[in-house]
Amino acid sequence: MSQLQRITINPSQLQQTQLLLTPQQQHYLLRVLRLQDGDKFIAMDGMGKWWLTQLTGETGEILELLEVQTELPVSITLMMALPKGNSLDDVVRCCTELGVTCILPVLSDRTLLNPSPQKLERWRRIASEAAEQSERAFVPTILEPVAFSTAVTEYAANHRYICEARGDYPHLKKVLNNCSGEIIIAIGPEGGWTEKEIEMSIKAKFQPVSLGCRILRAVTAPIVALSLIAAACEV
Amino acid sequence: MSQLQRITINPSQLQQTQLLLTPQQQHYLLRVLRLQDGDKFIAMDGMGKWWLTQLTGETGEILELLEVQTELPVSITLMMALPKGNSLDDVVRCCTELGVTCILPVLSDRTLLNPSPQKLERWRRIASEAAEQSERAFVPTILEPVAFSTAVTEYAANHRYICEARGDYPHLKKVLNNCSGEIIIAIGPEGGWTEKEIEMSIKAKFQPVSLGCRILRAVTAPIVALSLIAAACEV
Repeated sequence: MSQLQRITINPSQLQQTQLLLTPQQQHYLLRVLRLQDGDKFIAMDGMGKWWLTQLTGETGEILELLEVQTELPVSITLMMALPKGNSLDDVVRCCTELGVTCILPVLSDRTLLNPSPQKLERWRRIASEAAEQSERAFVPTILEPVAFSTAVTEYAANHRYICEARGDYPHLKKVLNNCSGEIIIAIGPEGGWTEKEIEMSIKAKFQPVSLGCRILRAVTAPIVALSLIAAACEV
Repeated sequence: MSQLQRITINPSQLQQTQLLLTPQQQHYLLRVLRLQDGDKFIAMDGMGKWWLTQLTGETGEILELLEVQTELPVSITLMMALPKGNSLDDVVRCCTELGVTCILPVLSDRTLLNPSPQKLERWRRIASEAAEQSERAFVPTILEPVAFSTAVTEYAANHRYICEARGDYPHLKKVLNNCSGEIIIAIGPEGGWTEKEIEMSIKAKFQPVSLGCRILRAVTAPIVALSLIAAACEV
């Protein structure tokens, strides 16, 4: 089963047991993957449901709803200060593989750029592809970038952590004992958060945590944080 | 202290309390970083020692030996099946940040390329730069690529793990209870290890382990494994 090709669909493409394929999906299945009439593939709605589907002409025939066990039992929102250049591409790709639920890019005091709307589309496409490759049932939501002050005050979760390389804070692994419900984890930009931002986040009930004794790049830190949270939930 | 610039030196550059700088290091300190006579920087020998050094003309004057606390208490060797293209660059960079001791690229059944000697130099340069940026006292050793069969039989450690996405193996986090001495962790290529390779590694006393329920790319898996080992050692 796990070797079947996967595509992400919009729930509106489902008409009872028939799956209406977009021209792009037809091209991908018929031309790129060279599937034949009668071949099977998996259609994912990106919200936790997978269907075993059979190619029938230029549409799909739904055969059965599948059980999937690849999602984490918690909801994880990554608040990620926008890193330089295209670095968020890698963060979206790796964190999707690791089970993130939602990524909220934030504009922090040390953020250099305000990304174009094309970037948002690009991150969403990367998340969709990474969800397929890692055999997830769920495509993470990539939200529009917001200011740091908006992010820390308007997004709620029962566990909120902000990672900070400098300072004597407890290790994330240590505080992850009760790993349930919703987790928000905030990761800073190159150069780290400003003192003002750390203070603002503490007022908003974020707990500052460390990811270890070495200084991580802004793009490595979220992968480390997600690795630790996923392992804490699954083991 | 942590904000001072760092350079990696060869122990032979030390002449009692004087540090002889190479032309490249002079260029970097004087032209790129624009240090002035009397400015301080840190010289690392890549083997655990840091010296606070003062620029004096075109040489350095050693002021004191520094205590560093950024190295893990275990030795970790990453046996990494060579991934496609330049992907090992990212693996070297991230795993250096996370505290790896040694990286041994391996040629597995599903490895596509045999890298050029220039690649080895490139990986070593990346490791040196990443060690400086992450404030490590130690530059990881990057060994020449060897065949998988050589790697699993000739390299010894008291803990040996091989990561495998498919199959019902215990999670790495679960088996890391007694994290001391030397650890070898083997990570497969795109498409995973072959059955023959898994069998060969088990005969060589490697324990197959999982990194979670989702399928990780070959370049993400070592970062996840190193994150879990580093956290197990430090927390």
